[in-house]
Amino acid sequence: MLELVQPTVEEVVLANWTRAAEASELRKMLSITMRPGILSFALGLPARDLFPTKAYSDAVQHVLATDGLALQYSPPFKRLKSHIVTLMAQRGVTCREEQVFLTAGAQQGMNLLARLLLEHGGEVLLEQISYTGMQIVLEPFQPQILTVATDLKTGMDVDAVEILLAGGAHPAFIYAMTESHNPLGVSLSAEKRVRLAELGRYYGVPIVEDDVYGFLNYEGKPLPPIRSFDDKWIYYIGSFSKILAPALRVGWLVVPEDLTPKLSFVKDATDLDCATLSQRLVSAYLDTGHLDKHLETLRREYRARRDTMLRALGEHFPEGASWLKPTGGLFIWVELDNSIDAGALLQKAVETEQVAFVPGHSFCSGNSSYKKNCMRLNFSNCTSAQIEEGIARLGRVVKNASR
Amino acid sequence: MLELVQPTVEEVVLANWTRAAEASELRKMLSITMRPGILSFALGLPARDLFPTKAYSDAVQHVLATDGLALQYSPPFKRLKSHIVTLMAQRGVTCREEQVFLTAGAQQGMNLLARLLLEHGGEVLLEQISYTGMQIVLEPFQPQILTVATDLKTGMDVDAVEILLAGGAHPAFIYAMTESHNPLGVSLSAEKRVRLAELGRYYGVPIVEDDVYGFLNYEGKPLPPIRSFDDKWIYYIGSFSKILAPALRVGWLVVPEDLTPKLSFVKDATDLDCATLSQRLVSAYLDTGHLDKHLETLRREYRARRDTMLRALGEHFPEGASWLKPTGGLFIWVELDNSIDAGALLQKAVETEQVAFVPGHSFCSGNSSYKKNCMRLNFSNCTSAQIEEGIARLGRVVKNASR
Repeated sequence: MLELVQPTVEEVVLANWTRAAEASELRKMLSITMRPGILSFALGLPARDLFPTKAYSDAVQHVLATDGLALQYSPPFKRLKSHIVTLMAQRGVTCREEQVFLTAGAQQGMNLLARLLLEHGGEVLLEQISYTGMQIVLEPFQPQILTVATDLKTGMDVDAVEILLAGGAHPAFIYAMTESHNPLGVSLSAEKRVRLAELGRYYGVPIVEDDVYGFLNYEGKPLPPIRSFDDKWIYYIGSFSKILAPALRVGWLVVPEDLTPKLSFVKDATDLDCATLSQRLVSAYLDTGHLDKHLETLRREYRARRDTMLRALGEHFPEGASWLKPTGGLFIWVELDNSIDAGALLQKAVETEQVAFVPGHSFCSGNSSYKKNCMRLNFSNCTSAQIEEGIARLGRVVKNASR
Repeated sequence: MLELVQPTVEEVVLANWTRAAEASELRKMLSITMRPGILSFALGLPARDLFPTKAYSDAVQHVLATDGLALQYSPPFKRLKSHIVTLMAQRGVTCREEQVFLTAGAQQGMNLLARLLLEHGGEVLLEQISYTGMQIVLEPFQPQILTVATDLKTGMDVDAVEILLAGGAHPAFIYAMTESHNPLGVSLSAEKRVRLAELGRYYGVPIVEDDVYGFLNYEGKPLPPIRSFDDKWIYYIGSFSKILAPALRVGWLVVPEDLTPKLSFVKDATDLDCATLSQRLVSAYLDTGHLDKHLETLRREYRARRDTMLRALGEHFPEGASWLKPTGGLFIWVELDNSIDAGALLQKAVETEQVAFVPGHSFCSGNSSYKKNCMRLNFSNCTSAQIEEGIARLGRVVKNASR
């Protein structure tokens, strides 16, 4: 037995990919936006005054009093899957319980699918401007990221997808947010939906369709997700985080039935797949039949907040700024005068007017670059009065920067 | 735009590692053990009649009524970290809140640490007989698994660890369950604890210390975990699953403070790190100060069930079978006559006597093989009467097999 005195290695060696996972300047900036006193349009938080808290409290009481398995290790809750089949039908999607896989939210859904489909160093196809949650899922795989542009009126450039696939690219999957894109707010056009599903099927490339805003629509019934066109190549991601509450951590996938045992394996490794209490809580809430009315309330309130923000933008933002009215979701994408750098603007906005947003280029995926003059504004987490006040403040900062 | 008719690819291509993740014969067998009517000693379930259900129900009511952030996206709950610091002191470990990282259970703790430390195809060091939850975490990495033996009285062969490290191996980490090993039931001796911590420090290899049974001890105060000897190279895994309830999905890590931002990044990618409701629930329960009394109840009950099982084994098992009395945890490891194959025995036990267990060799890690004549018996999830009955049945099956 050796005498062990002087360590041979001074510091722990982490996996390679973690070097890229440093807190960025932006991330540091965003943590500043969480300071008390800051009026923030930065994060995508649902309005907590709209959570049906009392109904959950009743539901959890009921579950704990009547269901002896609610706190034990037990398999995914079948009754909740049946509720989800009904919900999916409201979105125009026909599916069976056997195709529903319960997750701890949409983020976990992305992570499990990436684990299942993506080889280390493999290829993935994203939009140039894409939800950052998927981007952080991909980092540990150190993948090759193929990107396509997004049209602000019709969504993902599906022709560009076709050119890539026809040219021999075979990504592990294509990630698409077809309804109320985060951060751009655009929904994929009907024509493009059909074509994208065709491309997935023809080239044998799974399309991961993120529909977390599919139930938050403010202009009549939205188009059905592309999962309604194909049940083999489209993997659907849904979540209760935005329509019930994030902290419940319940979401779902709709996937081909033969994938669910593999997903179970991955989920077991991730967290043992036994969040039985929260699944039963959500199911008990859905049993009461109050979801439809609750969704109506959310749509009415969020529509009003969106409209307040659109009006305030018109009033307080200078010429040269433009934005589109999103038909759903939680965000408005604003393009400012070309000369403005939204990163520098954020710093000024926080310092001089105590108001925050996310600079658009922080959603860039892979090696893609994007113009620096854009911002994402969230309208769900502030009251109308706060939106008025915050956009007025932000308007002053933008006007000063435009001079 | 091409006309897309005949698919070019018929089936989805999954990541390579998933080929090894087929449901094994054993897994299929285990699902049979879940059939109604089967008396099962197979899984590691805590006793659900001992869950403090009413206290949780009160705690969740209180949290929902008083804490406006309980259902929102929000950061890990600081007050719970402070409770954990106090709990760790009871285990002889000094730590600070900044070193505590909250997880959705021990399984997630393992998964996050593997993501952080292990390169694809990298090296890890496990015991030949090792908790399967860590093994399924490792599969997607397709790692090189180095193994060492375990002595049934003193635990992991730490000399063998030293030989490997001195010979140039540099695993990403060593996985060790120092207290009440699952499945072997053994606790690492005091001498070996000191030496293992020295080896980690000297060779600069992190040791992932899984202490999920550290609070379930039945023979006086257990030894402190090796985290008490070193706060730089030992990463500690704890969990409320076995001492409160699995479905709450709350556990923790104690790690060097500088690792927590990296862990946050990995956890964000995994599930957005916002299980605020369950963290607040556990914290509110701990606020009541009832945990110590609850732990006493668990220890008394589980000690009685263990002793019932030991007595029944002595009564009903034939000569040639042997077992050790575990000082904690949930399992008794039994070695049968050399001629018996525990896999075949399980099939017979389920078919002829409706009783189940886990064959010992299903815990083999990497390419290691292990004798086939062992079984793991769980004693926490059956009443004393069921234990008497089940061991009598199993004794008959073993006696028949020994003939």
